[in-house]
Amino acid sequence: MPAMTPEELHKFLEEHFPQVAHFDLKVEHVDDTTIRVRLPSKEQHLRPGGTISGPTLVWLCDLGFYLLLLGRLGPVAQAVTTNLNINFMRRPEPADLIGEGRLMKLGRALAVGDFTIRSDGSDEPVAHATLTYSLPR
Amino acid sequence: MPAMTPEELHKFLEEHFPQVAHFDLKVEHVDDTTIRVRLPSKEQHLRPGGTISGPTLVWLCDLGFYLLLLGRLGPVAQAVTTNLNINFMRRPEPADLIGEGRLMKLGRALAVGDFTIRSDGSDEPVAHATLTYSLPR
Amino acid sequence: MPAMTPEELHKFLEEHFPQVAHFDLKVEHVDDTTIRVRLPSKEQHLRPGGTISGPTLVWLCDLGFYLLLLGRLGPVAQAVTTNLNINFMRRPEPADLIGEGRLMKLGRALAVGDFTIRSDGSDEPVAHATLTYSLPR
Amino acid sequence: MPAMTPEELHKFLEEHFPQVAHFDLKVEHVDDTTIRVRLPSKEQHLRPGGTISGPTLVWLCDLGFYLLLLGRLGPVAQAVTTNLNINFMRRPEPADLIGEGRLMKLGRALAVGDFTIRSDGSDEPVAHATLTYSLPR
Repeated sequence: MPAMTPEELHKFLEEHFPQVAHFDLKVEHVDDTTIRVRLPSKEQHLRPGGTISGPTLVWLCDLGFYLLLLGRLGPVAQAVTTNLNINFMRRPEPADLIGEGRLMKLGRALAVGDFTIRSDGSDEPVAHATLTYSLPR
Repeated sequence: MPAMTPEELHKFLEEHFPQVAHFDLKVEHVDDTTIRVRLPSKEQHLRPGGTISGPTLVWLCDLGFYLLLLGRLGPVAQAVTTNLNINFMRRPEPADLIGEGRLMKLGRALAVGDFTIRSDGSDEPVAHATLTYSLPR
Repeated sequence: MPAMTPEELHKFLEEHFPQVAHFDLKVEHVDDTTIRVRLPSKEQHLRPGGTISGPTLVWLCDLGFYLLLLGRLGPVAQAVTTNLNINFMRRPEPADLIGEGRLMKLGRALAVGDFTIRSDGSDEPVAHATLTYSLPR
Repeated sequence: MPAMTPEELHKFLEEHFPQVAHFDLKVEHVDDTTIRVRLPSKEQHLRPGGTISGPTLVWLCDLGFYLLLLGRLGPVAQAVTTNLNINFMRRPEPADLIGEGRLMKLGRALAVGDFTIRSDGSDEPVAHATLTYSLPR
């Protein structure tokens, strides 16, 4: 059983990341090693050309994986990203973004996993990231 | 249906990579977007300390993903690795290594995917790589 | 001689990226294979904890390397990021950020380079990224 | 002053990595944050096509950066690679390979740096890797 439920993760986000509250990110599922989040399609993420920017996709991977770690470790965790590798593969469609994270290693010092972003209704990845977080002692 | 069967991939390896024939790599499954290979536990991969070396794991990810591309595109493909990112997570156990590849994008110029290595009988990844191959015109 | 001067790059940014104009990013130097940019220390990049966020550092690496490509190829280039790998190494100090990019390969299909961020007055990297851009035909 | 000289690093390699002794890797320079090594052009690294294989380049980056860490920390260090990201950029020419490493962060738990490989006599990188090593307590 994860240490935090989706509702507790939403509340944590509101309290600690008020600047992203308007993005309305939803945790749809979380367990010990996986998470699924939904980012509603909204204007403010869009580039002039009408597509979601690379930095927004990076932000979603990083935040989504952080929520997976919080769900596993609880709200006290002060984890920081040390490495992020991302491949951008397709332009997102004008739909919600679905992000799915997977925890591959939870060691004493490091957590490693990956995070895949798809457009809702499509199986083809928009972006895929692998992430390493340094964990507090 | 993939362009090449496991048997055809084995034959391709013998002909084009005779130097790895003694590793006895087996393709257990291949379809349009996934592959599973088995590397028997053998002495010659081992470091003095008794564990499989990082470069051997890199080689397995690179070769396994290349076989997935061959299975999809057929034996004419002259694909070369342009980027490889690997996280080493655990020491492998003294067992066969199971490698599973996934093709996430097959564009005109680039193919992108990932490859996960586990010890046979374990669910926990030993190493995980993402790879980009440049495809011939 | 680069195809675009710092002044032309500033003008290009204002026209094509009006949303980042208020960040006041300055191109201090550009030549065929290197660039140096300065991001003034400003409140709006800061996290609640007072430090610059990971996504802001990613954005700076990505934009700075893009400006290096523009400087080399001219304003017609429609290049897109395909891979970004970043290591976060230190918290930035409350100073301007200095970003230095280096073009390592300019092929027909791909450009590869790296980008290092330091706090002004310090030699120690805050973050280091390697990037691959896909180039238009 | 580094903890180990090039001569001590050569001796360490002979004792602890006898399997690579025949590669005749030379440490040409080492200081607290940089290293330069030379790998003589020899037949046994070559692929059938006459070029040096990707795994050989990975091995050289990994070993060269490890020697840089040893030079800094001394022979007791039991460091292991946790992340390696490599871009392959050009075919090496039939010449010695020159590898140059740079230590960007030496923390208590992690060391981060990069490693660039060129053909002797050329300025253009054959491959560039960033590496993270986990350090023993």
